[in-house]
Amino acid sequence: MARQARAVETRRLILQGAAVVFDEMGYDAASIKEILSRVPVTKGALYFHFPSKEDLARGVLEEQTLHPNFLPQTSKLQEVVDLAMTVAHALPNDAMLRAGSRLALERGSVDFAAHSPFLAWAKVCEELLEEAKRDGEVLPHVDCRETAELIVGSFTGIQAFSQVSSGLLDLEQRVSAMWRHILPAVAVPSALTRMDTGPDRGARLSQAAAG
Amino acid sequence: MARQARAVETRRLILQGAAVVFDEMGYDAASIKEILSRVPVTKGALYFHFPSKEDLARGVLEEQTLHPNFLPQTSKLQEVVDLAMTVAHALPNDAMLRAGSRLALERGSVDFAAHSPFLAWAKVCEELLEEAKRDGEVLPHVDCRETAELIVGSFTGIQAFSQVSSGLLDLEQRVSAMWRHILPAVAVPSALTRMDTGPDRGARLSQAAAG
Repeated sequence: MARQARAVETRRLILQGAAVVFDEMGYDAASIKEILSRVPVTKGALYFHFPSKEDLARGVLEEQTLHPNFLPQTSKLQEVVDLAMTVAHALPNDAMLRAGSRLALERGSVDFAAHSPFLAWAKVCEELLEEAKRDGEVLPHVDCRETAELIVGSFTGIQAFSQVSSGLLDLEQRVSAMWRHILPAVAVPSALTRMDTGPDRGARLSQAAAG
Repeated sequence: MARQARAVETRRLILQGAAVVFDEMGYDAASIKEILSRVPVTKGALYFHFPSKEDLARGVLEEQTLHPNFLPQTSKLQEVVDLAMTVAHALPNDAMLRAGSRLALERGSVDFAAHSPFLAWAKVCEELLEEAKRDGEVLPHVDCRETAELIVGSFTGIQAFSQVSSGLLDLEQRVSAMWRHILPAVAVPSALTRMDTGPDRGARLSQAAAG
């Protein structure tokens, strides 16, 4: 492997290990020692990439919004739905997503507000909604930023509710219900009837992406 | 004061102090010593009412759903809206509500799932929705439990988003937007047009209750 490719791979390994530890323990209880015990890299390599625990947390927060892949659709509004359904499907098995969410929800000793995934997710969602609006799928009075921030906020709280009620087992069911409740206030009637918001949407997309 | 009234007052004082400390520090960093430094009660009195930090946290979680008062309305659906708008208005100045929310959102070293305010709030909300449905205000296909749990989950995440974006200053605006998005999927048209979901609804209710 070329030196640069190896560095990218090492960085990825470290962030993956950090995500597992932040997800399990939260920011304050996590330690670099604990993270080092989970990844096959030297202390020197870790400190080269991430000089502090704060840098590791920021790395995890920045990584998580780059994470999910979803298939392009002809409907941009369907892509907004798919983004949430894909994350809901992936979350129980994706430490990076769970760690980002835990770091965002917990007000620990360090304030990660400036690196909050809330704002990054809302931006992704807002841009898709703006495209959907240009395509005539979104009702004219909808303020895309307001709706995007509502979706991201709601999703996050629904995830916390699902964690308590079922250890995330009912998350896809709950996110599907979110769409059934929110979309009538967002989509034009002809787009609304075409939207696929089934709780198994994330699983079907993930199979299609793998196949 | 009779002995029993004094005991109730002491218990209330302790929970109030515990709420301030849990809100500021989170569960893991909070200590009974810190709580004792904020309330004018003896160590003996505190341990008489709450033998452990866990008992204090459970007390705060149980207290918070008993907390908000809202004025009875002829429309039960308006009461659901009012409950959320009242909490949104009170939250920035109410340590008990904020502490309950922080304990519910943070996965600390103790699991408070069984005492989660999520389920208690959802129950209050579900009962009001059931009444609204009997009164013909709610669309026939609405599953009141599903909608109630969605509202409570969404509210919680919106609050976390508002904490990051504005330190809760825009919370009432965001909760008002939540109602504008969700109600069209819940209310029959004639009830929908009558709902007051303005961001100043909580402030107006609080003035009316005080006046």
